[in-house]
Amino acid sequence: MDELKPKPASCSPFTPLAFLERAATVYGDCTSIIYNHTSFTWSQTHRRCLQLASSLSSTGVSTGHVVSVLAHNIPQMYEIHFAVPMSGAVLNNINTRLDARTVSVLLRHCEPKLLFVDSLSRSLAMEAVSLFPPNKTLPLLVYINDHDDDAAAVDSRFCCTYESLVEKGDPNFKWVRPKSEWDPIVLNYTSGTTSSPKGVVHSHRGIFTMTIDSLIDWDVPKQPVYLWTLPMFHANGWSYTWGMAAVGGTNICVAKFDASIIYNLIKKHGVDHMCGAPVVLNMLSNSPEIKSLENPVKILTAGAPPPAAVLSRTESLGFVVSHGYGLTETGGLVVSCAWKREWNKLPATERARLKARQGVRTLGLTEADVLDPESGLSVKRDGSTLGEIVLKGASVMLGYFKDPIATNKCMKENGWFYTGDVGVMHADGYMEIKDRSKDVIISGGENLSSVEVESVLYTHPAINEAAVVARPDEYWGETPCAFVSLKGELTQKPTEQDIIQYCRAKLPHYMVPKTVVFKEELPKTSTGKIQKFVLRDIAKGMGPSKSSSSPVSRARTRM
Amino acid sequence: MDELKPKPASCSPFTPLAFLERAATVYGDCTSIIYNHTSFTWSQTHRRCLQLASSLSSTGVSTGHVVSVLAHNIPQMYEIHFAVPMSGAVLNNINTRLDARTVSVLLRHCEPKLLFVDSLSRSLAMEAVSLFPPNKTLPLLVYINDHDDDAAAVDSRFCCTYESLVEKGDPNFKWVRPKSEWDPIVLNYTSGTTSSPKGVVHSHRGIFTMTIDSLIDWDVPKQPVYLWTLPMFHANGWSYTWGMAAVGGTNICVAKFDASIIYNLIKKHGVDHMCGAPVVLNMLSNSPEIKSLENPVKILTAGAPPPAAVLSRTESLGFVVSHGYGLTETGGLVVSCAWKREWNKLPATERARLKARQGVRTLGLTEADVLDPESGLSVKRDGSTLGEIVLKGASVMLGYFKDPIATNKCMKENGWFYTGDVGVMHADGYMEIKDRSKDVIISGGENLSSVEVESVLYTHPAINEAAVVARPDEYWGETPCAFVSLKGELTQKPTEQDIIQYCRAKLPHYMVPKTVVFKEELPKTSTGKIQKFVLRDIAKGMGPSKSSSSPVSRARTRM
Repeated sequence: MDELKPKPASCSPFTPLAFLERAATVYGDCTSIIYNHTSFTWSQTHRRCLQLASSLSSTGVSTGHVVSVLAHNIPQMYEIHFAVPMSGAVLNNINTRLDARTVSVLLRHCEPKLLFVDSLSRSLAMEAVSLFPPNKTLPLLVYINDHDDDAAAVDSRFCCTYESLVEKGDPNFKWVRPKSEWDPIVLNYTSGTTSSPKGVVHSHRGIFTMTIDSLIDWDVPKQPVYLWTLPMFHANGWSYTWGMAAVGGTNICVAKFDASIIYNLIKKHGVDHMCGAPVVLNMLSNSPEIKSLENPVKILTAGAPPPAAVLSRTESLGFVVSHGYGLTETGGLVVSCAWKREWNKLPATERARLKARQGVRTLGLTEADVLDPESGLSVKRDGSTLGEIVLKGASVMLGYFKDPIATNKCMKENGWFYTGDVGVMHADGYMEIKDRSKDVIISGGENLSSVEVESVLYTHPAINEAAVVARPDEYWGETPCAFVSLKGELTQKPTEQDIIQYCRAKLPHYMVPKTVVFKEELPKTSTGKIQKFVLRDIAKGMGPSKSSSSPVSRARTRM
Repeated sequence: MDELKPKPASCSPFTPLAFLERAATVYGDCTSIIYNHTSFTWSQTHRRCLQLASSLSSTGVSTGHVVSVLAHNIPQMYEIHFAVPMSGAVLNNINTRLDARTVSVLLRHCEPKLLFVDSLSRSLAMEAVSLFPPNKTLPLLVYINDHDDDAAAVDSRFCCTYESLVEKGDPNFKWVRPKSEWDPIVLNYTSGTTSSPKGVVHSHRGIFTMTIDSLIDWDVPKQPVYLWTLPMFHANGWSYTWGMAAVGGTNICVAKFDASIIYNLIKKHGVDHMCGAPVVLNMLSNSPEIKSLENPVKILTAGAPPPAAVLSRTESLGFVVSHGYGLTETGGLVVSCAWKREWNKLPATERARLKARQGVRTLGLTEADVLDPESGLSVKRDGSTLGEIVLKGASVMLGYFKDPIATNKCMKENGWFYTGDVGVMHADGYMEIKDRSKDVIISGGENLSSVEVESVLYTHPAINEAAVVARPDEYWGETPCAFVSLKGELTQKPTEQDIIQYCRAKLPHYMVPKTVVFKEELPKTSTGKIQKFVLRDIAKGMGPSKSSSSPVSRARTRM
């Protein structure tokens, strides 16, 4: 059969962009996007995207160029996910929570032809471009006039408005299909919890696979009502941007939100699906605004291991929580805690403990494993031996932009992508993250997972948020140091000793924090993850802790 | 970004085989297969497939070899869909309804190393191999002892039994992953309604895409209960063989069935999904055994355009019918009648008319169109201009085995796969098949669709099945000739003139059959399609019809 080689009819490139014209055919009259008092149908969205792509093309944007965007979850941001790559260009959406200096660094790194800026990001963008050195070419600036009242206020640094580009574009534009499915479609900078930002490049093939895979894994039905609580700039909304066109969903856009706004939008539009980091679950379940849900709302969480207590509380409100795991480097979730029916019979705390595990690879990923860093072999399936999580499959990135060294460091010749995340494999084949490599605490030769300590802290009724890092220790090398913020309106606040005692009843001795620091709020990255490197610096600054553990207790902890 | 080339971590080959080990992890204790009084769990199925693959490997089967099977929808047939390609070999499942001569031709064409034969196919297989010329090497014969009572009766022409291979295999066998996703995985012979059988070869990539795509398109949830009314040898059960492992479904196997058996299995096992050609819908809705469904059963139909009347009748019983289109050359359904919510408000007959259309491409297919055979351009979207249906995408076959001329004839350099099916494109972008190229009737220069005439015949209360072919005509060249079978237990049978009058009220004059032939039963292919070439021969044998149409009526039909 060797003479049967791929032919053009069978190897036409995968691309998620083709979902849009199909949506216009199948769901043409159905609502694609709702934002405040504006709404669009799928026919309109298709037409607007073609028009914008056409105008970009006329402006000189073409294959291989980068087009950046600084925008919140507004309709234009959704359209850009199709329109920019439909012009042949590579989409680079930038986290609007970054500071101007970082934005400026990113823009100079990827050298976009054009930068879209929404009204809320205007001052950030202006400050970022003002930091460009005089000899560096600025991108063309396009203002997204997302408020009617400021349409007139476009200043001269902008070449035009978004709407003017849409208006003058050709709705019959023949969009640029990728020549190869390995052609780049997006460039996403990592949030940089542990190091300087890196530019992740994904191919059409990778994003196509991720999108389809995410729909199957989460059992997304046709025409869901999807609330955009997850920023689209966060790994392109885990690829659900393209996914909503695939299933003809209604995108409920929201630029800024709190628990009250979410509950109102759920009720108003009959939202049935949403995504968010665990911090969103925390927000929903700790809010005084809690409203009972008329229908179950499916919520998919990832980005950090969700504390079992938060999972449990959110589910008790009528949210159906699914939990998965992915990285900017995989374009979305590639491991998920596939739920077993028999688990429904278990008590709530046990269910939450199981659901807090990251789980198994999705159908689109070829392989996933946890490898021993020394031997390179799979770790024991015992739920406790730590190793590095590794992945293999179509949705793994092409590589880091302009950074072959970093690319080769994580995408090795043995076929694995090394995530830098530390985890264990349970006896049932489900994996669980224990830490980022850098977050592992090594105490007296024992590797201990800060996440495990945090899980216990989150069960304490007075604790709102918790993070555990290493503090240097004269005797043990390192000991766990806990940073916690407390819930508001407590009648009695716990002391450091109260919390240590609480942990002692639930954890092996060596895992119990030796230090507890109370904070009003914990420092966070722009995507809502707690910045452990900041806390680690504080812990280091406190100087070595003095150990009081007896040899007897150590002996026990080694078991 | 040109320096970013695919790396091993991101280009590990797609394959549907990896779904099985995932099913064993996620659905290990859940039922994978039920057949009469036997059942298996996904852990057991995974283990048995590894064991069988291991034994095949020990027998000398390896990459590039063909392994054939003649079996009904029994558990072993399901296992073979994983185990054979897990040994590196290409699976060739043969239609058990073929005659021995054809089976013999196929076996000599693909030269399998080994042939699995179940008890019901034993005499067919024996006759087929007896037709081998003496100088031709026979495949090793393995007997699938699917009945306990005949295990002892294996005759000496079989080298061993299926169970003995499973038993002696290594459950820790490291299955053979494809080196490239373009490696072949299956070889399926077309049923040959219009020409001699051709061997369709699909790649791991093609089948992976088809499988995932079919799950999304039909909205298959996790853990469905799936009844095997569609033969697995029919394009590998439209790829739902592999699909059921992807979603951890329960496969209800059934070797032979009638309406009564189907209704009993639905009730007994809580079946919620099944597939079948329109003939199955006809069987279910015309049976005296009709039992009310306790819950809706989703049924997916394709293989021939379903008459609107049959669709309508089946739905009234509580079946939720979806309709799609595919070919052996696409490994499953690649076009489907994506349902619009607004259609639910329409009257039943209108809903059935819309659903009888083939529809739009699925997400996994890149493009689908209807092309004018002369100009090669898209036909008008008017629902009446005939053209050839063409497709482009990953699930299009690699090509025909040992037949580069036939391959190049349908897979052209312009990137399209030419299906040989004649259809129209409606204004809303939904396509509808009007005929196989050879089934179009050309009457007085008008191309007329036999399927359209059949649709009208099916609405006649006395007609059970109908097929329309061309009969030579002295004046018009050809005229439509209808073959019909009537329903049982009619108090009054219609005459030829009754049926012609009935059609005249509903069709343009030139489309009304000039001849109606009553048959006890219409001749069918092994996959249940009506054999039009047999009827065409009969119609030719009747000699030219004498036309009585007046010029006036012709003028009307041209509008």
